[in-house]
Amino acid sequence: MKERTYSNQLKEKIGQKVTLWGRLYAVRKMGGITFVVLQDRDGLTQAVFEKEPEKIRAGSIIKLSGLVRQEERAPGGVEMEGETLSVLNETKEDYPFDLSKKELRLNINTLLDHRPLSLRHESQRDLFRVYGSILEGYRRFMREKKFTEVKTPKIAGAAAEGGTNLFSVNYFGKRAVLSQSPQLYKQILAGVYENVFEVGSTFRAEKHFTSRHVNEMVMLDAEMAFIDSEKEVMKMLEECLRSLFGFVESEHEELLKNRGVEKILFPEKEFPALALAEMKKLIKEKYGHEVPAETDIDPEGERLAGQYAKEKFNSDFIFLTEYPVKDRPFYTMPGEDGKTKSFDLIFRGIEISSGAQRIHEYEMLVENIKNFKLNPDDFAFYLEAFKFAMPPHGGWGLGSERLLYKLFNLDSVKEAILFPRDVKRLEP
Amino acid sequence: MKERTYSNQLKEKIGQKVTLWGRLYAVRKMGGITFVVLQDRDGLTQAVFEKEPEKIRAGSIIKLSGLVRQEERAPGGVEMEGETLSVLNETKEDYPFDLSKKELRLNINTLLDHRPLSLRHESQRDLFRVYGSILEGYRRFMREKKFTEVKTPKIAGAAAEGGTNLFSVNYFGKRAVLSQSPQLYKQILAGVYENVFEVGSTFRAEKHFTSRHVNEMVMLDAEMAFIDSEKEVMKMLEECLRSLFGFVESEHEELLKNRGVEKILFPEKEFPALALAEMKKLIKEKYGHEVPAETDIDPEGERLAGQYAKEKFNSDFIFLTEYPVKDRPFYTMPGEDGKTKSFDLIFRGIEISSGAQRIHEYEMLVENIKNFKLNPDDFAFYLEAFKFAMPPHGGWGLGSERLLYKLFNLDSVKEAILFPRDVKRLEP
Repeated sequence: MKERTYSNQLKEKIGQKVTLWGRLYAVRKMGGITFVVLQDRDGLTQAVFEKEPEKIRAGSIIKLSGLVRQEERAPGGVEMEGETLSVLNETKEDYPFDLSKKELRLNINTLLDHRPLSLRHESQRDLFRVYGSILEGYRRFMREKKFTEVKTPKIAGAAAEGGTNLFSVNYFGKRAVLSQSPQLYKQILAGVYENVFEVGSTFRAEKHFTSRHVNEMVMLDAEMAFIDSEKEVMKMLEECLRSLFGFVESEHEELLKNRGVEKILFPEKEFPALALAEMKKLIKEKYGHEVPAETDIDPEGERLAGQYAKEKFNSDFIFLTEYPVKDRPFYTMPGEDGKTKSFDLIFRGIEISSGAQRIHEYEMLVENIKNFKLNPDDFAFYLEAFKFAMPPHGGWGLGSERLLYKLFNLDSVKEAILFPRDVKRLEP
Repeated sequence: MKERTYSNQLKEKIGQKVTLWGRLYAVRKMGGITFVVLQDRDGLTQAVFEKEPEKIRAGSIIKLSGLVRQEERAPGGVEMEGETLSVLNETKEDYPFDLSKKELRLNINTLLDHRPLSLRHESQRDLFRVYGSILEGYRRFMREKKFTEVKTPKIAGAAAEGGTNLFSVNYFGKRAVLSQSPQLYKQILAGVYENVFEVGSTFRAEKHFTSRHVNEMVMLDAEMAFIDSEKEVMKMLEECLRSLFGFVESEHEELLKNRGVEKILFPEKEFPALALAEMKKLIKEKYGHEVPAETDIDPEGERLAGQYAKEKFNSDFIFLTEYPVKDRPFYTMPGEDGKTKSFDLIFRGIEISSGAQRIHEYEMLVENIKNFKLNPDDFAFYLEAFKFAMPPHGGWGLGSERLLYKLFNLDSVKEAILFPRDVKRLEP
């Protein structure tokens, strides 16, 4: 095995001769001296060559040897006195944009069209390092709370998923659909394990052209049994987010600081919660914005709810509760006066999660399926769980990409996805 | 909040009065005494009623109170002196099969048709508890080895995935396909992060009717850069499996013992490895089985390779290497004499993983795409990564369900999936 040093090990090797493998990230000349920057798994390393090395293009795969020395002016306080630099695999062309600058200022189409290249920029690498920790932080919390991890199918029979906004799949000549949520399965599994969670792909064939929507997402789902009300679900979700972001910060404290990521505002007490109708009234009175009647709440309404949470509670989070029956799916537990025992969670002015207590009584569920003009026969496999008794239960779906999107205050959720899918984008 | 005791806490509460919530798992009468078994998140609890409680059906959701006492003859050495039992949600019918026995002996169609019920059996719950730990064990190892976790899209442009065996998706009027592997994306990402892993859904439209195949799987993928050869990939995979199964055992030692799961045979030295051609020769000479010429290796061949590994090396694992070019995808690094730098890993007589070093040089890759009668234009986004230089790299795909399948020595891989998808099965 080759003796390989990584960028983040340089500090421990001052005065030693080392060899690094990686990508030539940047070359800069200043007053007869050449600065070569190598990028590897862990970061960047600067090497100084007194004599200019052979002309090489940024992007090439290189092997770099030299002496490690302390240098206050170098990033990280350490650099290499370059000795040899050899090219292992040469790039065929110059990059179509500059990848050597600290900020990568590309318009979103260029950024996404050239994803194999734009992702090589340190700012992009950092983003998805944090994304990995978001996933891990979620799972750590759920496992700690004794939720069982499950994987449910993404190809589903067409009938039960019902409705519009579903991608069709040709399944051996039959029509199937791509799952828009593990909802029915995680409920069945709450009847098996009580508490379950899933990290999985979901698909929505919505023709949105916004910065908030994509057509394929990774959802963080959970379902829990023997709850008294949706309040317990909200409490668990709040605890989850505190723990998740705590984990992200513990893994990436310096990265977040370097990238200027604003600290998340967690209220000292529990997350504020307001009934949807009250929030609408408040938004109108306080900010003069009228939420259109045909929607539960519009994007501007969400933004103002977020603003209110920050002004009033010093919180980046606020729950909206008691959504009307007509705005929630058939399995939602009804509350009083045509409302449901449901909630959305707003984070920095955007909905990141929906949840509720679910109906667990068989007759009530069958009745409600009919109320929604659906056919109970299409839900036979799902209803079997209820016919043979379900505990009271509830849960949430949480959008993993929206967490990253709002954490980094990006312009679009598409920037928070390695290879996003939208109405126009199937590649890369 | 209600004061709730769980089944596995009973031992710590001897002499105390406790209340449990759960499902009525079984009722047995013996000589005037009624044994009631409750199932909750963590397991089973037996309660003894001197006076028969009201007639209730197994499956119902109940609340059970009583005094905890030591009882050598009870499972776990502890039981409850039943005081009150109330039904919170009653099952509407008797179960279509007996769920109270230690073993659940159902034919596979009944098992899968009634998944919401069959999963309630303790043997099934145990299976997927272990599955959760397989996923976690995989991720722990990969993260420890500094692989970055990624999520790649499952809907793909039709051109680049090419070939047969793909499910078609109607993507806003365009034809797209479901991804059969994150291969192209994880290679691109090896050019970004060096080491990446993914746990994700994959889809294959193969018309198999075997106990080894399903049409939707969760694959454990990895890709690593700056390797010298596929040998490094094999070494990492071996280490991964040792660590993964070690983790599973650490989480479920007692469960595995109770279920009679045979200990996995890990060879003292590294996993044995044999060139495919040699293995075929050996299988013929030693076991009299001729692998058909039109296949790389048939199921019987895999089984015998597994048998050989056990007899000769006391190992449940064996690598087969040096697959011919014609049996491997276009991105596989060629070796000598029409062979490739590739491997399969056999575990207990079945292939669980395929891997290889990949081609990383642009011209060679373009050439090879043409050799495979494919059109390089269809791979433009993928080739961009190579035009702008890739490091040498390789990786594997590992079937998560097959690990569970062979660990528990199940009759079919379908039993190792909560809600499997096969040619005939889209529900539940």
